[in-house]
Amino acid sequence: MLELLKQEVLEANLALPRHELVTFTWGNASGFDEESKLMVIKPSGVSYDELTAEQMVVVNLDGRTVEGELRPSSDTPTHLELYRRFPGIAGIVHTHSPWATSWSQAGMDLPVFGTTHADYFNGAVPCTRPMTAAEISGDYELATGNVIAETFEANGISPLEVPAVFVHGHAPFTWGASPADAVYHAVVLEETAKMGSRTKALQPDVSGISPELLNKHFSRKHGSHAYYGQTGKEESR
Amino acid sequence: MLELLKQEVLEANLALPRHELVTFTWGNASGFDEESKLMVIKPSGVSYDELTAEQMVVVNLDGRTVEGELRPSSDTPTHLELYRRFPGIAGIVHTHSPWATSWSQAGMDLPVFGTTHADYFNGAVPCTRPMTAAEISGDYELATGNVIAETFEANGISPLEVPAVFVHGHAPFTWGASPADAVYHAVVLEETAKMGSRTKALQPDVSGISPELLNKHFSRKHGSHAYYGQTGKEESR
Amino acid sequence: MLELLKQEVLEANLALPRHELVTFTWGNASGFDEESKLMVIKPSGVSYDELTAEQMVVVNLDGRTVEGELRPSSDTPTHLELYRRFPGIAGIVHTHSPWATSWSQAGMDLPVFGTTHADYFNGAVPCTRPMTAAEISGDYELATGNVIAETFEANGISPLEVPAVFVHGHAPFTWGASPADAVYHAVVLEETAKMGSRTKALQPDVSGISPELLNKHFSRKHGSHAYYGQTGKEESR
Amino acid sequence: MLELLKQEVLEANLALPRHELVTFTWGNASGFDEESKLMVIKPSGVSYDELTAEQMVVVNLDGRTVEGELRPSSDTPTHLELYRRFPGIAGIVHTHSPWATSWSQAGMDLPVFGTTHADYFNGAVPCTRPMTAAEISGDYELATGNVIAETFEANGISPLEVPAVFVHGHAPFTWGASPADAVYHAVVLEETAKMGSRTKALQPDVSGISPELLNKHFSRKHGSHAYYGQTGKEESR
Repeated sequence: MLELLKQEVLEANLALPRHELVTFTWGNASGFDEESKLMVIKPSGVSYDELTAEQMVVVNLDGRTVEGELRPSSDTPTHLELYRRFPGIAGIVHTHSPWATSWSQAGMDLPVFGTTHADYFNGAVPCTRPMTAAEISGDYELATGNVIAETFEANGISPLEVPAVFVHGHAPFTWGASPADAVYHAVVLEETAKMGSRTKALQPDVSGISPELLNKHFSRKHGSHAYYGQTGKEESR
Repeated sequence: MLELLKQEVLEANLALPRHELVTFTWGNASGFDEESKLMVIKPSGVSYDELTAEQMVVVNLDGRTVEGELRPSSDTPTHLELYRRFPGIAGIVHTHSPWATSWSQAGMDLPVFGTTHADYFNGAVPCTRPMTAAEISGDYELATGNVIAETFEANGISPLEVPAVFVHGHAPFTWGASPADAVYHAVVLEETAKMGSRTKALQPDVSGISPELLNKHFSRKHGSHAYYGQTGKEESR
Repeated sequence: MLELLKQEVLEANLALPRHELVTFTWGNASGFDEESKLMVIKPSGVSYDELTAEQMVVVNLDGRTVEGELRPSSDTPTHLELYRRFPGIAGIVHTHSPWATSWSQAGMDLPVFGTTHADYFNGAVPCTRPMTAAEISGDYELATGNVIAETFEANGISPLEVPAVFVHGHAPFTWGASPADAVYHAVVLEETAKMGSRTKALQPDVSGISPELLNKHFSRKHGSHAYYGQTGKEESR
Repeated sequence: MLELLKQEVLEANLALPRHELVTFTWGNASGFDEESKLMVIKPSGVSYDELTAEQMVVVNLDGRTVEGELRPSSDTPTHLELYRRFPGIAGIVHTHSPWATSWSQAGMDLPVFGTTHADYFNGAVPCTRPMTAAEISGDYELATGNVIAETFEANGISPLEVPAVFVHGHAPFTWGASPADAVYHAVVLEETAKMGSRTKALQPDVSGISPELLNKHFSRKHGSHAYYGQTGKEESR
């Protein structure tokens, strides 16, 4: 079942330590099959050097395991909530990558400080509000997905144009058109978070680039007027 | 004698440079056998690429070498004091890993800035008080163990729930249920110290996560209600 | 056509990830043949591990592709403008290397904080002004080249003596006597930008070295009185 | 002539990039033979991956090349001045390692923030005064050695107990009982400069460890009461 997607999810998970985004087992990637409405995700607490495609767990949108011997990632309810709330995404990555996690811990949005950011994210990367005691003591992982979706909905941010978020006091999630695309955005987020920290250290009052420059760079790589790469569309890999 | 533990202690020592926690010989790992009340520790000043299991030194709780040709680590009295004062621990690691050492040098506790910290340490990682001239001129390494234990006892911190400390003006010690577990905590401490420094640089007034979020993450991985990993118990490696 | 230059441009492009100056495809190198007035440049959006010399695109100074199957880098008009405005340069490199990009994002010139800088750049590395909405909505990549050239002309800076610039809110460009020389300067810029950030963190009011020390180091490696290396001329590699 | 020392100097030079202390050719190591009063030093501007023992240049204390085809390092007069002024040292290393260079550029002494520092340097690592225009325009490299020696003499610092210096606006020099010992101290300096920068970022008013703790750690590894390592003497490698 979904052998191709399992392979893609395996490769996305293996890409996380290769890009130095995870320590130990602190991260996971999933993929979503739009047709069958099934999610494939990493099993919980298995180290990356032992992972195989067969170990990937298939879960339906209600959270029931429909294939797989192992328990799915403990972050499964968060992933499912994002697939339900953000139509059109087909891959999610969660890591504790150190620069992005520092922005999560600081509880700050990452402004558009430069064109590296604008090439991939059409606006600031938002940080969620802190979760309430009730959310934490209830269905915590589901509530994590909810607070992410709420952040985008309440602020009118398109999750397809800003495929990344900082969960307050926790760490980042990124997503995209495929598991590999979500990994790509996790790398971009870590790189822009690093450069953002260093930019603020040099110039604490920096305000970021103009709306015109943001729009120019984002539209150079995305949408009908794109002209980057060999096809005029963004090439993520 | 204690061949298995010697192998574990050797592997723990070799893991330190692999995790980029030590420069030259600036670190050591030990293990404790609860039944025989004997400690196995790295010999002093031997570089990691020459270490063998046979070189490990076996010392009793009074500090007498009961097996081994080489002189034990000069930090032996510190390790012994921690095994005496912290019942239930069976592995200790000391390094001068750069981020954690910077917190030691700054003389500051590491607050719980995020869930990465909360997954392993149930509260702030404390920094000891500076040692007195008398402690330094007396049995210095023993006094180092004493000031660590005092820090936990005076502040009511459980060494089993917060398995890490910064020695003021010196460097960190971590411990755990085995030598490998102590290494694991040394990696976690370096990573959280790094993210803590970067969090404070972004947001100097950051106060850290709520008690509810700390408790949720710590208990998700530890204790009878744990549900992370394949067994519901924490899997450290 | 220009087989040797294609090979040099290929090698310059491959050197960028090896020196950890680029993530994914975020960078490009070109070379210029003074005799034929033709530029060789990396194709757009092709990843470094697939690049071959045959894929390099040959473009004339009017921007017309005269050889090559692939679309040239989207930054082609910027490169061409620099070859037109800075006579004597024969290689250009553009990256989003993180330390230099942070200075671009901060919108700051990099002062001459030490002799490492003075060995290669005869004065501060300037940052351009922000580009106007009209420049951005028009021929953006051409305007990028223009704002770089304007920065040097308006401030009387010699592009041969200061072969590097920060584009405001974007990232650095460097150049030199060959594609390899431009790569060399990209490495120097990243290293001096890193040390500059750390210098300012230690000493926010630091003013930089004296004009005498700048002149001594620059002239020790450049010009008729050079005495560094085996020939008395700078050896870049 | 001096084949053993040439081999040691070669190995010291090769250790510099391996310890990530140099970029390109930005560093050099030398050794001094007390009996013959001859120095062996790296040739100028030769890259590390091409260096051989035969290329090492032998120079007498007056600066005359007594063996070797290549021109010696342009920093030769600095090295010679240090061997003349600091009796008892037999190896010198100069690098532009980034953390130590940042302290040089900031023009600041590195205080004794912790025991890592105290294990090797018996006091703050000093930064020289800026050099005068006359010194720079005269015999510059000789004057560099002179300003280093002056810094130690004027402040009563023993170069054998504090084997490292920051040259103002330039970069560090370290030395020791052999070329390998000087490399060792260059690594220690870079590590302590890194931790010092991070310590100050956390706690700008940090004052450093007590004189008792400094003395305890320095004497634990040096002098007649040393008890670290297998012999009771410091083991540098």
